[in-house]
Amino acid sequence: MMRREIDFLLYDWLDIERLVDLAAFGDQERTDWDAFLNLSEDISENEFLSCYKATDREEPYLDNGQVRVQKDLKAALATYLKAGLHLSALDVENGGMGLPYTVATAAMAELMASNVAGSGFILLSAANTRVITEFGTPAQIASFATPQIEGSALGTMCLSEPDVGSSLGDITTRAVPDGDDAHGMRYRITGQKMWISAGDHDVTENIIHLVLAKAVQPDGSTIPGPKGTSLFIVPKVLPRSMGQVRNDIAVAGLNHKMGYRGTPNCLLNFGEDGGATGWRIGKEGEGLRIMFQMMNEARIGVGLSGAALAYRGYQLARTYAAERIQGRPIHLPSNSRPITINQHPDIRRMLLLQKVISEGALALCLKSALLCDVAQYAENGVEKKNAAALLDLLTPVIKSWPSEQGLMALHQSIQVHGGYGYTRDFDVEQLYRDSRLNPIHEGTTGIQAIDLLRRKILLDEGRTFKIFLETVRNTIKDATSFPDQAAQLSGLCDHFDSLVRAILETESTEDALSNATGFLEAFGHFVIGWIWLDLAMAGERSGDHQIAEVKKWACRYFFAAELSKIPGLLALLENDNSLTRTVPDTVLI
Amino acid sequence: MMRREIDFLLYDWLDIERLVDLAAFGDQERTDWDAFLNLSEDISENEFLSCYKATDREEPYLDNGQVRVQKDLKAALATYLKAGLHLSALDVENGGMGLPYTVATAAMAELMASNVAGSGFILLSAANTRVITEFGTPAQIASFATPQIEGSALGTMCLSEPDVGSSLGDITTRAVPDGDDAHGMRYRITGQKMWISAGDHDVTENIIHLVLAKAVQPDGSTIPGPKGTSLFIVPKVLPRSMGQVRNDIAVAGLNHKMGYRGTPNCLLNFGEDGGATGWRIGKEGEGLRIMFQMMNEARIGVGLSGAALAYRGYQLARTYAAERIQGRPIHLPSNSRPITINQHPDIRRMLLLQKVISEGALALCLKSALLCDVAQYAENGVEKKNAAALLDLLTPVIKSWPSEQGLMALHQSIQVHGGYGYTRDFDVEQLYRDSRLNPIHEGTTGIQAIDLLRRKILLDEGRTFKIFLETVRNTIKDATSFPDQAAQLSGLCDHFDSLVRAILETESTEDALSNATGFLEAFGHFVIGWIWLDLAMAGERSGDHQIAEVKKWACRYFFAAELSKIPGLLALLENDNSLTRTVPDTVLI
Repeated sequence: MMRREIDFLLYDWLDIERLVDLAAFGDQERTDWDAFLNLSEDISENEFLSCYKATDREEPYLDNGQVRVQKDLKAALATYLKAGLHLSALDVENGGMGLPYTVATAAMAELMASNVAGSGFILLSAANTRVITEFGTPAQIASFATPQIEGSALGTMCLSEPDVGSSLGDITTRAVPDGDDAHGMRYRITGQKMWISAGDHDVTENIIHLVLAKAVQPDGSTIPGPKGTSLFIVPKVLPRSMGQVRNDIAVAGLNHKMGYRGTPNCLLNFGEDGGATGWRIGKEGEGLRIMFQMMNEARIGVGLSGAALAYRGYQLARTYAAERIQGRPIHLPSNSRPITINQHPDIRRMLLLQKVISEGALALCLKSALLCDVAQYAENGVEKKNAAALLDLLTPVIKSWPSEQGLMALHQSIQVHGGYGYTRDFDVEQLYRDSRLNPIHEGTTGIQAIDLLRRKILLDEGRTFKIFLETVRNTIKDATSFPDQAAQLSGLCDHFDSLVRAILETESTEDALSNATGFLEAFGHFVIGWIWLDLAMAGERSGDHQIAEVKKWACRYFFAAELSKIPGLLALLENDNSLTRTVPDTVLI
Repeated sequence: MMRREIDFLLYDWLDIERLVDLAAFGDQERTDWDAFLNLSEDISENEFLSCYKATDREEPYLDNGQVRVQKDLKAALATYLKAGLHLSALDVENGGMGLPYTVATAAMAELMASNVAGSGFILLSAANTRVITEFGTPAQIASFATPQIEGSALGTMCLSEPDVGSSLGDITTRAVPDGDDAHGMRYRITGQKMWISAGDHDVTENIIHLVLAKAVQPDGSTIPGPKGTSLFIVPKVLPRSMGQVRNDIAVAGLNHKMGYRGTPNCLLNFGEDGGATGWRIGKEGEGLRIMFQMMNEARIGVGLSGAALAYRGYQLARTYAAERIQGRPIHLPSNSRPITINQHPDIRRMLLLQKVISEGALALCLKSALLCDVAQYAENGVEKKNAAALLDLLTPVIKSWPSEQGLMALHQSIQVHGGYGYTRDFDVEQLYRDSRLNPIHEGTTGIQAIDLLRRKILLDEGRTFKIFLETVRNTIKDATSFPDQAAQLSGLCDHFDSLVRAILETESTEDALSNATGFLEAFGHFVIGWIWLDLAMAGERSGDHQIAEVKKWACRYFFAAELSKIPGLLALLENDNSLTRTVPDTVLI
């Protein structure tokens, strides 16, 4: 359903065909990627989209300690794994297809737009597999990654705990050393893990959990904070060498959520019966560090799902508005013929808003995926380094902008459908509920904001930020066909430039950091403004008059209606930045 | 749960005790109102709030043609009716309590915050009763209003139809004359009515439907457009004189919605078996006109529910944030003691945002209710006329601002709860889903926008708008303690003044009307800015230092963070106002 747009983004805009010049992709060509995208699209639409509603209606349930997943989704996942689509971005030496991450991401967008709850199983397992292949020993890879690669197991990430939320340094799950064996240092794991997506299910026989826990020291203590965390492989079913018996892991409960209902979200008890068996992966104390290497991709994944859900919502709204007949132009009498609602200017506005958000967000995510490829495989050192730095800077935007704005877009998708859009008969209702998770998981918007302003800008002393501004200014230089938009964006470059300088020069950054979310919102709009100008130029370059028109109008709309909001979003930071920090407790009643 | 705020708004801010100087309320005093508010609060919290979740989980269902409602809600409604709370605003001569609408509205806010689905039954019936007592014959009142007053029947409004949406002039339900009797002109009604809240249920034995239909002319035709519509009383059970048999009305289906699930929302078939029996109320051709007399109050009702849901969300978020321990101040090491999350500046920002939206929206609704009282009962002709005009102008804002912004506030309520807020274990999840209906029913936000800019401003040639600006300027004149805010609001007065003048002077208003929604959003913020400045002054006047502080800080936050967004919201209208009208169809792909 997104293929036409994906083709434009991948080939016309990002020109990913140049990736074949890199050694990593030297034996591939566009036809390979297109074949993969075709297969992904088929399976997404035929297997996953067809059970979108059923996965919401028939939530996973506990059956005698075992979680059961909606049957059509289970079948769809089996088809997906059998087709090997989960191996797209995994490197060839580990049994993967070794496709560019950009291409794999485009295919994932289709899957997410079809059934985001289904995509959860796949994404987590892919990240889990990558952790094990990257940090595991050959024996660990053979026993715990290979089954996932072969499709006989899926993987999870067990990080948070009931009282911990995002403060992962404060976890209390304990790992007591218990000797070693062929799989490495063995531990007994005890503790409770919360919010575990696909934490239990009947899609595959085995589930490989990656569990963040504190290794207990010889004196019985654990080390406080992030440095005390280590990572452990804890399989649901123990390896053949241990008799393939069930590990000491129990599903203590399922969370019942507003959306994303098809993915079981579990509270897992590890070691109620003496301790679950686990093996450490990586070094002691490096648990969080390892996990955070996966975080960029996890966050792109969330942003991508925000974009994909909004994209599908836009498609549905557009189709509905072209068919639904109601009302008449304001200057015609009340007995004139009613018209399709997409002829009403306010409906057109809502459609344009959905378009610029969903397509802008999708473009941002695919561009980020390309930055991942370049950062990993580029042969030019500077290009590689800059891509990595830019990706790092943009990650909070990639995570939060599609999440927050995608929800705004879906708000409009419902609005276009009127009362029908609020009923469970129409998919936009479910898309909206599904979408509401995105500003929360993998780090809330507020956490992304602190990450952007503190870690990515202030602690970096604005270096990468400056590179980014140069990148934007280079785009502006080329944008001779769009002088108005170029001028508007150029003004914003100067605005952000001086704002960031001012913050860097302030003695205490506490007030600025108190307003990090406003900064993130404004900066996100700025980034998407840059993307839309670039998309308009790519449309023009494409030589396709129709595409050029579409991108030009969308760019014009984004600049006129959205980019103009930036000063307002920055007002609290620029004019009254101590307010939220100094407001007395007694006011918050 | 809102009582403290309600008391401040009613007595300190709006000074409603001066209403007792009016003949209509001459025999009442504050203690009467307080007793009524106490009883309402008790029943809201003890009967309705306690089944808030159950009414969502156990949706109404069809049982052999009869809709069954969740049992606790059914009991709560019976208690409410038995206590006579539904009679608060009805005039004494018709058996009501004759309280000021302002007081009745405050009590309704408590009910809505407790269980908005429960409030639906009451509100519709109250509006129905008022139509019948105002436009009905004595016999109609006795047979169809009195049962509602006595609590043995509830009423509905049957306006929309499957293919009609908000274009009520296009309905096709037909009413064929069928003689007359003691209840007036009798008709046979046939047609399908959609989105009928409380359209069937087992709370009361009888249900009195007010049905909008087209009276069939002697030549078999109907009159196109709004002028062809008439209003009919169509009871579920026919009057005693007709043997108390069931009328020809069938529940064709129930809509399953995202929220508001406790209120059955029905598709009703009238006259499948030869024609439902109904009596015309009011004159032929005046159906829509009569219904729209109720529309102001219906729209205040929607705004009020937006405010009430957001208010409860804020209370829950505030309480949660004061208890939940997570993370630490940014400058402290990772092994320092974690703190309650309401100490994090970004959480404080989210709480402030919820506060200014929910309390600002509640204030707007209560002020509007007071305008209703003044417009109806004031003895000074100018005051009465101005109140009516101002109410008319503000109605689109009262309907849409709390609806749209309340949802934004609840977005933050969930965000404060993190992952928990996304689960069905926490009420904020349900509040958010319930709240999503408000921008749709009783006229979408887009319809409110056209109503504001076209009917209330342009067709009025800006006269009432000018009165409103004067009112705001008078507030500014008095706001000597808040010079910064006064200056900011004064600038906005000038901005809106010249914007509206410019639109009035333009030859074609088509482009401006294409951007009516942006205008409504911006104007709504402006109105709430005025409200907050006035609240801050009332806080100061109250002599209560604590309240003065609270209002002052909230006002400061609203002005700094929200009012500054107005230029951005107006940008499309002011800079590129033909865009949405002229964008080619081929772009909306």
